[in-house]
This record gives sequence, C-alpha cells and structure tokens, in this order.
Amino acid sequence: MFVPGLIERKRDGGELSAAEWRDLLAAYSDGQVPDYQMSALLMAVFLKGAGREETAGLLDGMMGSGSRLDFSRLGKPVIDKHSTGGVGDKVSLVLAPLVAACGVAVPMMSGRGLGHTGGTLDKLESIPGFRTSLTLAETMKQMERIGCALIGQTPEIAPVDKKLYALRDVTATVECIPLISASIMSKKLSEGLTGLVLDVKLGSGAFITDPEKSRLLARTMIDLGKDRGCPTVALLTAMDRPLGRSAGNALEVEESVNALKGQGPDDLMEVTMAEAVEMLLLAGRKSPAEARSELDKALKSGAAARKFQEIIEAQDGNPAVVDDPAILPQAQEVEVYKAPVAGTVLQVEPRTIGKAVVQMGGGRAKTDDVVDPTVGFVISARPGQRVAKGEPLASIYAKDTAGIELARAALGKAIRIGEGTPEMLPLIADRMT
Amino acid sequence: MFVPGLIERKRDGGELSAAEWRDLLAAYSDGQVPDYQMSALLMAVFLKGAGREETAGLLDGMMGSGSRLDFSRLGKPVIDKHSTGGVGDKVSLVLAPLVAACGVAVPMMSGRGLGHTGGTLDKLESIPGFRTSLTLAETMKQMERIGCALIGQTPEIAPVDKKLYALRDVTATVECIPLISASIMSKKLSEGLTGLVLDVKLGSGAFITDPEKSRLLARTMIDLGKDRGCPTVALLTAMDRPLGRSAGNALEVEESVNALKGQGPDDLMEVTMAEAVEMLLLAGRKSPAEARSELDKALKSGAAARKFQEIIEAQDGNPAVVDDPAILPQAQEVEVYKAPVAGTVLQVEPRTIGKAVVQMGGGRAKTDDVVDPTVGFVISARPGQRVAKGEPLASIYAKDTAGIELARAALGKAIRIGEGTPEMLPLIADRMT
Repeated sequence: MFVPGLIERKRDGGELSAAEWRDLLAAYSDGQVPDYQMSALLMAVFLKGAGREETAGLLDGMMGSGSRLDFSRLGKPVIDKHSTGGVGDKVSLVLAPLVAACGVAVPMMSGRGLGHTGGTLDKLESIPGFRTSLTLAETMKQMERIGCALIGQTPEIAPVDKKLYALRDVTATVECIPLISASIMSKKLSEGLTGLVLDVKLGSGAFITDPEKSRLLARTMIDLGKDRGCPTVALLTAMDRPLGRSAGNALEVEESVNALKGQGPDDLMEVTMAEAVEMLLLAGRKSPAEARSELDKALKSGAAARKFQEIIEAQDGNPAVVDDPAILPQAQEVEVYKAPVAGTVLQVEPRTIGKAVVQMGGGRAKTDDVVDPTVGFVISARPGQRVAKGEPLASIYAKDTAGIELARAALGKAIRIGEGTPEMLPLIADRMT
Repeated sequence: MFVPGLIERKRDGGELSAAEWRDLLAAYSDGQVPDYQMSALLMAVFLKGAGREETAGLLDGMMGSGSRLDFSRLGKPVIDKHSTGGVGDKVSLVLAPLVAACGVAVPMMSGRGLGHTGGTLDKLESIPGFRTSLTLAETMKQMERIGCALIGQTPEIAPVDKKLYALRDVTATVECIPLISASIMSKKLSEGLTGLVLDVKLGSGAFITDPEKSRLLARTMIDLGKDRGCPTVALLTAMDRPLGRSAGNALEVEESVNALKGQGPDDLMEVTMAEAVEMLLLAGRKSPAEARSELDKALKSGAAARKFQEIIEAQDGNPAVVDDPAILPQAQEVEVYKAPVAGTVLQVEPRTIGKAVVQMGGGRAKTDDVVDPTVGFVISARPGQRVAKGEPLASIYAKDTAGIELARAALGKAIRIGEGTPEMLPLIADRMT
C-alpha cells in the first residue's frame, strides 16, 4: 500500500476502493500509517467528497476495525435511533424505555455533549450511581434480561472511528457529510441492528444549519443503512427552538421521567412518539395506528416508566429517581427570568441556550472537563406566545451568581420579543426513507 | 494561534495573513504545530490555491525560519539561476563558471536528483573529492576569493522548507504552484541576490507537463521576486527531449567540461548562452549583444574553463578533470545501441530516459540510496534525424549486464522511429519578465 498514491488519487477527485479503505484504516488503526498522511487524506475527502459506493467502503473499513454485536439469539427485532444532536433533545431517554417496553430490543449506544449540544451519556450520569461504561459482556447480559441498555461506545466498536474523530477535530475536517455519515453509521451498524431511525435536526441549533446539507446527510446515512442491510428511516425535525422545556443534564432527566409518566411537553411527546412509531414499524408492526396504540398503552400502563427503572437499576443507578426526581442533584442558585418587555415571543434561539449551558459548567470546553449536572434552564416561553412585561419566561439553574449573570444575558439574547408572527419550522418537517 | 481555525479558513477558500503564516511556520519549525495539522493545511492550500499576496506571506514565513546571506561587501551584482529540472540538464555546471568568469558573483545553491531528473549536486560529486556541503563561512570566503560557489542548501537557509518538503513528499502535496514557488524562492531569495534567472521546463520530461501550469509557475515566481526586490526573468525551455547528449552524473560533467571549452552540443550551448545573457543583463550589461560578446570571449579565452577549475579546487575536487575528463569514474559495461529499423527519429522521450538512469543506479528511489556516478546514456539521435537500420543511436553506460538490458529496453521505448515530421517545442519557447 503506497499511501501518497492513495492521497493523490483522492486529491485529484478519484475514489479509493473498499479494499483500499479497509487496508488503509487497518494500518492507521495499528499506527502504521501516520496521522499526517491521514489528515491530508481527510482534507482531500472533505474538499473532493465521496460517492455512495466509496462512503460505504469507508464505513466498512471503520466497522472492520472493531467487533460487530450479534443479538440474533434474542429472537426479536433490534432497533436503535440516532439524533444528529440538538438543545434540549432528551428524546433518547424517553424513547428507549418506551420502545423496549413494547418488546423491541434497543441497544442504544450514545455519545457525550459536543459543542453546544448535550449528550445522552452526560444526562444519564446525573442519575446518582448510573454507569454508562458497560462492557460488551455486561451489555449482552442486560439486553437478554431487559431488552435495553443505554451505554457509551465500547472500545470494541469501530475503534478507528474514535482515533479518526480526534484527528478530524484538530484538523478542521469534522463537517464533512461522507465522514460524518460513515462515523455515525459505523457505530450504529456495529450494534447489529435490524432497523434504524435517524433524527436529523434542522435549524440554527443543529450542527448542520444548511437544510440542503441536512437532507444530504440523511440521504447518505439512509443509503449506507440500506446498502448494508439495515432498513433506515429519517425524520427531519425542528431545532430552530429547544425541544421541550428543559436544557441541562439533571433538568432533562426530570423532564424525561415526567414524559415517561405521560406528562411531557407537547413537542417532546410528538417527536418521541413519531420516532417510536417508526421504530415499531421497522420492528414489524403493520400500521402506524397499531404502533401508536401499543405505545400509548405502554405509557398509560406505566410499563415505559417501569422499563426505565429497570434499566437504571441494571446500570447501578438509583431507580427511585423515576418516582421522585427530587433525588437528582439540585442547583445552588435558582432565579426566574422575566420578560423585559411586552410583546410576542418571536424566537427562542437554541444555539445561544446550548452554549450558555456549556459555559455555566453543564458541558465541556475540553474533553477532560467535569460536567456539572445541576445547571441549565427550564424555559416556558414558546415562539408565538404573547407575554406581558415582567411575566416569567424561564427559570435559571446555576452553581453561583456568575452563572446566573451569564444565563440571564444568554436568555436576553436568545428570547427575542417584538411584534409580528414568528417563522418556525414544522416540528416534524419531513420523513425520508 | 488557533490552528484548526486557520486550517478551516483556508479550507473554505479564505486567506492567511503574512503574520499568520510567519507565526504558524515558526511554530511548526519549533515542533509546536504537529505534522498532522500542517499536512491538512497544505492539502487545503493545494486544493484551494493561494493568491499573490498570500504566497508572498508564505514565502516570508519560510525565509523567516532561517538566515539571509549578505554579499553586499563583494561590491558586485549577485545573480543566480534556478531550473525546474529536466533530463540531461547540466546547464548550471557550464553557466555558473561562465558567468562568474565575467565578474558576476554566482552563489549557486542547488539540489539533488528528484524523481526522473538529475541533480546538480549529484553531478558535481562525481568529480573525485568534490565537496558540496560547505558551511556558510566557507561559502562566504570562497565567494570573496573566486566569486562562485556550487553548494547544497545549508541548514541555515529556510530550514522550515526542508521540513515542509519532506512532509509534502509523503502527503501528495508537492505539485502545487504556490507551494513550489514559495519553496524555490525562499531558498533563492535567502541567497541575497540582486537578480535571478529561472529556467522553467516545458514538455514530457518536465515536472509540470501542462504548459499553462508551467507559465503560471513562472509568473508566480517572477512576481514573488519582484515583490521582494529581486528582479527575476524566466526562460521557458524545451524538455520534450533531453538537453545535450548525455544523461547521467559523470557523463554530464564530461559534456559540461567540453561545453566550457567551446565544444558543447548546439542545444546545450544555446540554452546556456541565453541564460547567461539574461544573468549579465540583470548584472547591468547594456544590451544582449554586449553580454553575448563578453560571454564568447570568456569561453574562447579559456577563462570560463579556468573558473570551473578554480571552483573545483576550492571545493576539494580534482581540478585536472577539466583537462582530462577521463579521470572521472568510468562505467563497467558500455554498449552501443543501434537503430532497430530505418526511418525518421520522431521522438526521444526524456522521462523514460531519466527514469532508466535512476533504475540503473544513477539516481535515488529512497533518500539514503547511494548514487552510482558512472551510469547513463550518451544519445546522438536527434528528433528529425534520418537513420539507417543498425546505425548507432546511443551509448549505454551501466554497472552490469542487467543495467544494459534495462537501458536497452528504455531506449527502445524512448527513441521512436517512423515516418513523418516530429513535433518539437522551440528550444527557447518564451521569455517572461
């Protein structure tokens, strides 16, 4: 393998074969190909792109670096969901127990907060004792016993993806659709799924803010799933405002617990149910109506909330959190944020909110930062709502007065009040298969 | 300095300022910026290009990593020549002593063989004892005494260029006009020149085979020279056939010695004289005619050949080589190559010849390969010439019979005989200022 020749071909707009990607990524994984050659190649991929077949080869190479889970002995459909990430996006916490309560296996491998968006693992870890770093053997055992696990990427799953991601992060090669798609799908397809639902976010709080690029990302991942025998459906959902009311780790767990008990905010419930219906359809349910009625039953009967309790208990967390969210860690400082003027709420800009949560300590600026689970927002203001001057719009949860100051400034910037009608994306803007 | 931000800007088609290039290259030189960030940036420069101002900033950053020579105390014009490299291109060996014999200071810093092309340093080192790695102090002393030195790049001159070149070589980022231009000009301008002549090769034996790109390279280097106060002239010359008759280190020294004694082949003399005239014009001569007559005198009087002897002696070589080229190392095996058919010589393809010299041991496949000075070709066949079947076309000089076999096959491929009129580039295709 002559690496400069491979880089040159990609640089000039050519393609690498699946065998070349496999050998190259294996050699990179082993340290035989240095970072400086890989980063030049990644920049060439960034600027020259990769077609459907080549992206599948790249995906195979990434999966080939690790193990592929096999849940076939469970004898039931194995379905997962992936979200491209947003602010207040706690859907996974509600969706996984809900769908598992309907008898579908959900081996959900999630990530940590990234940039302005929160991460499922960070949220779960605000539950006292909750452990997300299960071994493969533990995961397998838990899947057999309760049909769901909420875990981080294990070292066996597409390890080269981790190495590549760290390199992309420092060489300005992150926002590249073939690379993003292969990275996400290498992890998801390594879970040995029989179906996958993608939640691709649109709007200013999404990672990709250009809607055409979001569609292309969805299309690329759907094609990769299809080409590798995993039926994949994508919903394109609104991230031009936060999802639900809460943003911040423990606050989002509390909202999720309420949602599992049928008391979630409308937008969160609508997105969760839409994705849950897709998962059940992939699991073989005959119609959306059939799926919907089964899901409603799981919520109303308390089965979904009980499944969440089982998962928490299995992963060493305190299951009492489902009955009493007050055992979650609580912020030192709480303050109500009031409308500075009367008018119509024209916008609740999610990126500003997400960044504020990170700056308040609820996310990471560096990978080894410790996350404060208590901080964040509960925002009741909704775009389109009429508000009076002085009316409460949000609660701020901070660790100190500096955090309160910072949060107040962020809300002042994010919540735009004036006259007129807000332009909003439809909550579920599109469905792609 | 946030390096991923700089890479991102270049990736998206933006520019880095001169201060940013300076700081970045200084940090890279010190090892504070890792290779993997630099290679991603270089690939972005390769694919997005760099304008005149940015290329000058890149050049300054590269020069800023080292020293700049100062020959002002010599009190005379300091002129050098750079060739983009070809097969049989021994012009430097004739030109430097010839122009120095006319009273111009020529601090010629050259390179080694690269790819299919030979290198001036490798050729000079076939002279018994000749030493090309002078220190800066030695160079300065020699320039004062005899007005010319034929040396390799010293560690003080643009050291970051050496580090960058090694990285570009293994990351497919060599053939990029802004990077090539800044690399060449950073070394040449560090010589403290008052004028520079560029020999930009055209045709299949050149590094850049696209004539439009060759012109752009010439234009870019001329602009860099002008912007940095060094008047620069470029001749675009033919490399669709070898220059002169010999290709191979010692064989080219022999041809150069003959040329300095007025017995060079017409094409070599024509290119050498054209470049020498340009150098003398840059040195202040009033007209091409005046320059030409001075050069003719230096050749006929023996002053040029004597200057070469002085240089050889000063650099510890055996100066007797000028009177008796037979003291150069001689090949073990010599064979005459004859025309396999009668007809017109339609082409003598230089790249095939150059590659054969390397494969016979006269060049390097890896940087630490030892070069065999004896091997190569003397080719009498010229495009357009009528030849009879069995007529001698070339002599092969090899170290063993395997080398003879390889050389014979290469000549069979390179020397195309048939009916018709060969298409040839004019020897001196253009002059750009």
